Amino acid sequence: MKATIERSTLLRCLSHVQSVVERRNTIPILSNVLIEASGTSSLRIMATDLDLQVVETLNANHVEQPGAITVSAHLLFDIARKLPDGSEVSLAAADNRLVVKADRSRFQLPTLPRDDFPMIAEGELPTSFEIPAATLAQMIDRTRFAISTEETRYYLNGIFFHVTEDELKAAATDGHRLARFTIARPDGADGMPDVIVPRKCVAELRKLLEESLDSNVLIDMSASKVRFTLGGEIGVVLTSKLIDGTFPDYTRVIPTGNDKLLTLDPRAFFEGVDRVATIATEKTRAVKMALDTDRITLSVTSPDNGTAAEEVPAGYGADSFEIGFNANYLKDILGQIDGDSVELHLADAGAPTLIRQNDKSPALYVLMPMRV
Amino acid sequence: MKATIERSTLLRCLSHVQSVVERRNTIPILSNVLIEASGTSSLRIMATDLDLQVVETLNANHVEQPGAITVSAHLLFDIARKLPDGSEVSLAAADNRLVVKADRSRFQLPTLPRDDFPMIAEGELPTSFEIPAATLAQMIDRTRFAISTEETRYYLNGIFFHVTEDELKAAATDGHRLARFTIARPDGADGMPDVIVPRKCVAELRKLLEESLDSNVLIDMSASKVRFTLGGEIGVVLTSKLIDGTFPDYTRVIPTGNDKLLTLDPRAFFEGVDRVATIATEKTRAVKMALDTDRITLSVTSPDNGTAAEEVPAGYGADSFEIGFNANYLKDILGQIDGDSVELHLADAGAPTLIRQNDKSPALYVLMPMRV
Repeated sequence: MKATIERSTLLRCLSHVQSVVERRNTIPILSNVLIEASGTSSLRIMATDLDLQVVETLNANHVEQPGAITVSAHLLFDIARKLPDGSEVSLAAADNRLVVKADRSRFQLPTLPRDDFPMIAEGELPTSFEIPAATLAQMIDRTRFAISTEETRYYLNGIFFHVTEDELKAAATDGHRLARFTIARPDGADGMPDVIVPRKCVAELRKLLEESLDSNVLIDMSASKVRFTLGGEIGVVLTSKLIDGTFPDYTRVIPTGNDKLLTLDPRAFFEGVDRVATIATEKTRAVKMALDTDRITLSVTSPDNGTAAEEVPAGYGADSFEIGFNANYLKDILGQIDGDSVELHLADAGAPTLIRQNDKSPALYVLMPMRV
Repeated sequence: MKATIERSTLLRCLSHVQSVVERRNTIPILSNVLIEASGTSSLRIMATDLDLQVVETLNANHVEQPGAITVSAHLLFDIARKLPDGSEVSLAAADNRLVVKADRSRFQLPTLPRDDFPMIAEGELPTSFEIPAATLAQMIDRTRFAISTEETRYYLNGIFFHVTEDELKAAATDGHRLARFTIARPDGADGMPDVIVPRKCVAELRKLLEESLDSNVLIDMSASKVRFTLGGEIGVVLTSKLIDGTFPDYTRVIPTGNDKLLTLDPRAFFEGVDRVATIATEKTRAVKMALDTDRITLSVTSPDNGTAAEEVPAGYGADSFEIGFNANYLKDILGQIDGDSVELHLADAGAPTLIRQNDKSPALYVLMPMRV
């Protein structure tokens, strides 16, 4: 293999793929990227952690000799980062080494053969549809914060995608809070299996989406694999195993009969919660919310740090009562609300609370209260 | 005590003093700041770690009731940070609590009595002189990176200041590299004792200097204490114990007979070292420098990561030879060189190398070589 490529093109690609490569690997080849040169000017760079695989196709300046080799992802990324801006990089495989040259610098890096590089067998991916990258990005943004980090409940460690008769829904929950985002069902998504996309795939996908927000994403999936194709001819393909588990029937925890409606400015609410939570310690993350006619009083009491209280104007007409929430969970949700109004639908101090911008909002949140 | 103050004034002061307060303290009062209100509009805020003390005087909007109280530094700082921009903060001590009010927020914080707050006894400080803040900042910047972090050699854990007949010198070393900065002896500095200013005092001082680079700093000292007064009437006073030890006679390690002169562009040199060092692992931080007529070749060889080499054009006319340096130490020094030329005065592969911008430069560096 021998090829030359712009340093900026190589760097952008490596910055995408290197984050799929884990920093510590017991299997040496998993630290490497596969570089494949073909035709007169095509380069493919691939990285994998056995569960998630990214393949990026890029334009080389020139392919002198087609071929493929694997080399340390983080080392090549660090080198590309430090090479002079605007330089042309030459990559040449020879004698179990990859020779990297640019400007006055020359590196010889150890390699492993391309045949040892593991590929994810995609199998058949019968469901296939497109959605705008910006829409997919929003589905992720509005739900990913609620993904559970508890490894024992592995089936909650991702975003659950499923279709109904005319909708595609993304949902995530850690048992304390739930986030769901709904869009119209894209053409081709009928009969889509229920799938749980793992957290790491979500994170990598979101980073890649940021660079192609104006285009569409092609999604192909089976019950065990999903493939995201971004950015047309020269582009990125992300393939991931899906979480092999059953997502709980979350619709049962979405309250439907909560009759106490509270409306607030989400920014003033967020800042009030943030301020009173300054007092909260690890043991007392709960913020108490006392609801009265057209105002709420947020408060925190800590044995070590004293007390904090703040009044926030609100629209509220039902009975006065008190309810407690985890301050960070409340802030996570409020941080997702655009616009200048948020609705909280409450029942009582022990019941899950429904939070949304309004009844037309594609995003919906459920938050469990805490005893205060 | 009862006073009101602009949130921005309070926040700026707390951001200065809170970093003196250690995050973990076995003595509770050391977590607190002392707040003292006097006259009609004067507030003093003080923090200490028993070795270093900072006192800042600031303008209150109004002092309703003079007095003093101590309260958690980090808690008050976090609260001030989160209070609305532009708000007025009311501070009132009552019933062993400090009541903090601003806008719609109200906090009650636990306090400790002002009499328990420890003060550093300055004693007499017979030496007294002024230097421009910008000059002191430069003395620190050019030397602090060489301060040792080895606790067993506590006498190297700071910057050594001493005077000669007509100069004031700042020096720091960790045994592998030495940095020294020289200025003309300020009026009043004659008879100044040799002092070692501890790393933490240096760091806090440098941060404070950044905000008053146009003014002078008053330095008062004895053999055991130093006091820095910044910024005139409303200002900051930093008092520190000095390191009780003897700084080694560093002048003996400054080579005087190095006859091989190498001149380079410090940026190209820095970047070359940085690039080849990508290959270096923890075990092999050394970069090899081969000197030939009017060029050097930088190289690194690593058993795990392969090899790297880069040629850098240079002015050199003496015999060819090879020498090794710790890449990070070399980068630290090169990062301090302004201008487009740096001089390296070398003797042989085993001898300390002198590095400076030119013979008029107030800064001088000595770097020990590594075997490569």
